[in-house]
Amino acid sequence: MTLEESRSALYALQKTLAAYHHALGLLFYDGATTAPRGTAGNRARTMAVLSEALYRIHTRPETAGLLEELNAYRAELTERERRMTDLLCKETDRLRHIPQAEYVAYRQLGIEANAVWREAKVRSDFAAYAPCLRKRFDASVRIAGYCAPEKDPYDYWLDSNEEGLDRAFCDAFFDAVRGRVVPLLQRVREKPLPDNAVLRGSFGPAEQERLAHRLMDLLGLDRDHVGLSTTEHPFTTSLGSHLDGRITTHYYREDFSYSMFSVIHEGGHALYNAGSDDSLAYTVLDGGVSMCVHESQSRFYENYLGRSRAFADYLFPVLREIFPDHLRPYGAEDFHRAVNRVEPTLIRTQADELTYCLHILVRYELEKAVMAGELGVADLPAEWNRLYRDYLGVNVPDDRRGVLQDCHWADGYLGYFPSYALGNAYGAQFLRRMKETVDVEDCLRRGDLDPINAWNREHIWRHGRLYRPRDLFEKAAGGPFDPAVYTDYLERKFTALYNL
Amino acid sequence: MTLEESRSALYALQKTLAAYHHALGLLFYDGATTAPRGTAGNRARTMAVLSEALYRIHTRPETAGLLEELNAYRAELTERERRMTDLLCKETDRLRHIPQAEYVAYRQLGIEANAVWREAKVRSDFAAYAPCLRKRFDASVRIAGYCAPEKDPYDYWLDSNEEGLDRAFCDAFFDAVRGRVVPLLQRVREKPLPDNAVLRGSFGPAEQERLAHRLMDLLGLDRDHVGLSTTEHPFTTSLGSHLDGRITTHYYREDFSYSMFSVIHEGGHALYNAGSDDSLAYTVLDGGVSMCVHESQSRFYENYLGRSRAFADYLFPVLREIFPDHLRPYGAEDFHRAVNRVEPTLIRTQADELTYCLHILVRYELEKAVMAGELGVADLPAEWNRLYRDYLGVNVPDDRRGVLQDCHWADGYLGYFPSYALGNAYGAQFLRRMKETVDVEDCLRRGDLDPINAWNREHIWRHGRLYRPRDLFEKAAGGPFDPAVYTDYLERKFTALYNL
Repeated sequence: MTLEESRSALYALQKTLAAYHHALGLLFYDGATTAPRGTAGNRARTMAVLSEALYRIHTRPETAGLLEELNAYRAELTERERRMTDLLCKETDRLRHIPQAEYVAYRQLGIEANAVWREAKVRSDFAAYAPCLRKRFDASVRIAGYCAPEKDPYDYWLDSNEEGLDRAFCDAFFDAVRGRVVPLLQRVREKPLPDNAVLRGSFGPAEQERLAHRLMDLLGLDRDHVGLSTTEHPFTTSLGSHLDGRITTHYYREDFSYSMFSVIHEGGHALYNAGSDDSLAYTVLDGGVSMCVHESQSRFYENYLGRSRAFADYLFPVLREIFPDHLRPYGAEDFHRAVNRVEPTLIRTQADELTYCLHILVRYELEKAVMAGELGVADLPAEWNRLYRDYLGVNVPDDRRGVLQDCHWADGYLGYFPSYALGNAYGAQFLRRMKETVDVEDCLRRGDLDPINAWNREHIWRHGRLYRPRDLFEKAAGGPFDPAVYTDYLERKFTALYNL
Repeated sequence: MTLEESRSALYALQKTLAAYHHALGLLFYDGATTAPRGTAGNRARTMAVLSEALYRIHTRPETAGLLEELNAYRAELTERERRMTDLLCKETDRLRHIPQAEYVAYRQLGIEANAVWREAKVRSDFAAYAPCLRKRFDASVRIAGYCAPEKDPYDYWLDSNEEGLDRAFCDAFFDAVRGRVVPLLQRVREKPLPDNAVLRGSFGPAEQERLAHRLMDLLGLDRDHVGLSTTEHPFTTSLGSHLDGRITTHYYREDFSYSMFSVIHEGGHALYNAGSDDSLAYTVLDGGVSMCVHESQSRFYENYLGRSRAFADYLFPVLREIFPDHLRPYGAEDFHRAVNRVEPTLIRTQADELTYCLHILVRYELEKAVMAGELGVADLPAEWNRLYRDYLGVNVPDDRRGVLQDCHWADGYLGYFPSYALGNAYGAQFLRRMKETVDVEDCLRRGDLDPINAWNREHIWRHGRLYRPRDLFEKAAGGPFDPAVYTDYLERKFTALYNL
């Protein structure tokens, strides 16, 4: 093949991959949003066929041949084309190293494990889930061994979620979190709980939907390209390319803030996806570079912006338009205090800004220990409960509200949890850097997010997956990762709020 | 390959095809229901990639080889396997005869033509649409020539919608319709228009949705396997297999009967799809055998049942529970007369039971003439308007409400319109036969559709595509097709209703 032929085959291959990912993503989305209850098995069959087709596209000899050709032309490729080639080689190598039977069994296990987990959670029965979870961990160790025999298995999974991430990096980060946040939380807990009556009442779904659309507009989401649906658990996806984004939320009648912060959080993910340079569509460079950077964006909008005092000044009158009767007796300050109420609880997805990273810390320590063979799956519940007592000071009454609460391990997302906490920490450094050129507080008070979005677009979004996550982070943040920026932020914010 | 190997390859091939059809169907469904407005182009790219993959699966040498093997084993195959092989051969032959470039261009034209048609309809500008429509007809003639050079091109397209259908069959049917329904309509029109105030008022979408769910339950649809969404134009689809069905409706605030009859009509389609024998799932025998038989079921539930006097007795009290204030002054008889009000109008999708087949008659005559080269595309509007005057007695004020109203030609559905009218006529014969063993009126009055559904399941639904449509029809109806059964039914019904 000539250079031009290889180049056009490279783009054609990526367009094909994007189409399969579109179909698979839509099948998942349909299952979560619209599909009738009894159709999961039907959908699973189709997903199995299309995943296998995708596997075959990656592993067929002509793909390997193309990637070799491209590597031979390396010097003549553009920076983007080199990166596309590298990402495709990495994924293709990974898949080629996994025996097809193991790959199929692993995917099948994912479907079974989710069903077993779901049932076990309902009945709070960890013993029923343990054999399946053990298989999950064992298979993950084996797969890491096939794909990266030179690496520690947990490092392999960390890297698969965020290129370059390893235990050393995470350990340093979580040590800092443990050392600063645990004592900070203890000081906060000595103070009285702020009142949150401003958030609680009876809020109709139609009004909450109106608020959701208002927030999407405020965030700068283009509703011709980003849709909103409702699901049990909110999430964000893009379908086919960054030109079709979907976010979901859940309306709880008794508390409007749940959907409100879901929309802001998922909106952050959706802005990041949608912000890829248009020329990246239908290539592997389209969309977010890693889960850490993705969470840095969602939590940036949710916490650094959404839970700030300045934004409360803008948002509260908007909320009052939508819920006039309920909000009449309150002001922006009441709202701000309520959405920043710190209360150690059992459930990660309901955690406040301060305790959230401790929920992640627990999961990080546990999955690392299991992957290293230092902790047996059967001992997970006891260890989970001990760590919740130590770090959060709460007693776990049952496994449903303990070790069984999340689906991540069942779904095979090993090494994924750290992204949530690291994303928070990345965001603190992005904010500090952004403030050098953008008057963030003024933007928030005026409800004008354009300058903030423009900064994120320029430094993060538009690049898609062009740079390695660490490189992108350092360019955008203007320096290396430093957990202290995050822990300092938390200490400053909550010391002031709680008069510590 | 051994017989067993060929057999298992046959099922594997069909499972793969079902998965691609699932993905393509879901992409279409998503576009019609949930997708943000600006995402059509993104979706079209994915659909193009997956359609091409489907084309390649059909036309690759190993598929041809497998079908040859299966034909060699023909005597040892089951009846089902022989039929699967025949249907696959037919589709594969068809695709292999179309040059790939023509196939891709034809699909591309479909996407473009729909957009051009949509725009032309809004502006009531036939001239803007004509060149595209001409290309559509020309391409259809060419494709018929590739696939069935021995056949008349219009016969080819009729057969592609209903195996075995041709002009001779349709001519005989439409002659009967023309000869009986046009004069019957003239007599009806001499009578005063029945009042339809019972249907008209202000009906909230939440109440209409409650009615829709109530009707789905009444029809016997299993809501764990059939979902309801809203779209501009109601339709039915199954995704992956008959185990996942979706119907859609549209709520018009001023008239609850539109959504009500949509749900019953689409519900008939969905019952038919869902009624395939479970062992047919993931094979080409799954689902409805042809569009005529499909319409025979949808219109059976909509008209023969839904617009009957007996059903009005059951349904009216249900409607009164849902719309108590509006319906207080009315009774079942008012409702029955209103839903059977005959009024020649311009728009097919709003037509009553009597005039509906005349709308189809117009389209049949026109598309047949264009395909035969007897009528130029440019002359379509004038001819359309003339036929509406002759058959329906209405003047067409503009092309938006005339020749531009339907998307079928733009979308390449040539030879499709006759199905709607033939389906009506099939249903009349099914009803006559069903009444020999089922007390249909009694079922309707009690709101118990189980015996009716059981008959349809036994004679029609469970067979899927196992029999050729004509054979299935004759077995179920207990004799050959006879248009007089349908026209007699219309004459009897409307003579009584209008005291002719």
